[in-house]
Amino acid sequence: MRDRILNATIQTLCLRGYPGTTARAIASTGGFAPGVIYYYFADLDDLLVETASFTSQRRMTRYREVLAGTKKAAEMVTRLRTLYEEDSLCGHIAAVQELVAGCRPGSKLAERIAKVTKEWELMAEEVLRELLRGLPFARLLTVPVLARSSVAFYLGMQTLSHVDGDEGRIEQTFAQALRLARVLDRLPRLYLRQT
Amino acid sequence: MRDRILNATIQTLCLRGYPGTTARAIASTGGFAPGVIYYYFADLDDLLVETASFTSQRRMTRYREVLAGTKKAAEMVTRLRTLYEEDSLCGHIAAVQELVAGCRPGSKLAERIAKVTKEWELMAEEVLRELLRGLPFARLLTVPVLARSSVAFYLGMQTLSHVDGDEGRIEQTFAQALRLARVLDRLPRLYLRQT
Repeated sequence: MRDRILNATIQTLCLRGYPGTTARAIASTGGFAPGVIYYYFADLDDLLVETASFTSQRRMTRYREVLAGTKKAAEMVTRLRTLYEEDSLCGHIAAVQELVAGCRPGSKLAERIAKVTKEWELMAEEVLRELLRGLPFARLLTVPVLARSSVAFYLGMQTLSHVDGDEGRIEQTFAQALRLARVLDRLPRLYLRQT
Repeated sequence: MRDRILNATIQTLCLRGYPGTTARAIASTGGFAPGVIYYYFADLDDLLVETASFTSQRRMTRYREVLAGTKKAAEMVTRLRTLYEEDSLCGHIAAVQELVAGCRPGSKLAERIAKVTKEWELMAEEVLRELLRGLPFARLLTVPVLARSSVAFYLGMQTLSHVDGDEGRIEQTFAQALRLARVLDRLPRLYLRQT
């Protein structure tokens, strides 16, 4: 039942936006009585905070599953594109967009989103370290900064698509990334022996 | 007086967020009667739409002024950093953040923000073309896609700072960009003769 409430919250955020995501609206989306929410969550704020973690953790598990063992950058980009499509279809992107837009700085929701963002940054770090391993210019790059930049970029692309409804830019961006990834995959790498 | 109302709207967005930016709050920030607003603007929506253009145009004029004639990438990064600090101090970033977060897809405000974003993308294209001119790998890059990505990245960095209040990541990102820019400035360029 807890998961059903969390899923109904994601759907409601997509359909009605942050301001329209009331306990009544969530209950109506999920087909249960509003009172049920307060059996599992302290209040609406608590439910929204837990929804941020819920959708993020579910997607992160999936990202780890799909990206595991990817060695080539081009393969990575292709898999990330599939993951992005899933993010979009399951309502993750729209729900996150609404939560980020709706949260006030300093609130519990903002604090949780910051925590969740940090987890995504750490995952991006792992992926980037693997991709850059042995590349001649890797020493010019600070992986944690690139990882944060990647998360910022992902959020910003979402925001732009949200504002103008243009999904075409996502396609073009993946096409551009794929072109660069293919070049990256042809560069010679210097592997240091691990002792 | 019109500019005074627009400036008061920017300040109010920074102080009270999108939901708190009512005609009464704007009037109180600016020290004028709420009725004055309706002499210059059809309604609050209209005022918010015009505020998006106002702050954006003012900053774009300044960006053009500061970036004009910059040939070296490192110099460009240093100037962009100053511009970013100004964006932050004058309330531009916080106001844009609030307008983007508050606008509903399909609304007049969303439409105007999309238009304004497009203008920034075009400016980013000019800057990128200048920076990449003659570089050996420039043919791998699609400038309009990079320009959109830059705007998305800027928005996303703002969003992250808004959520967790951590301005340190901006500093680190500029430091990383500067390091890459210095390398870029040392690369040989192939200048084709213009006929």
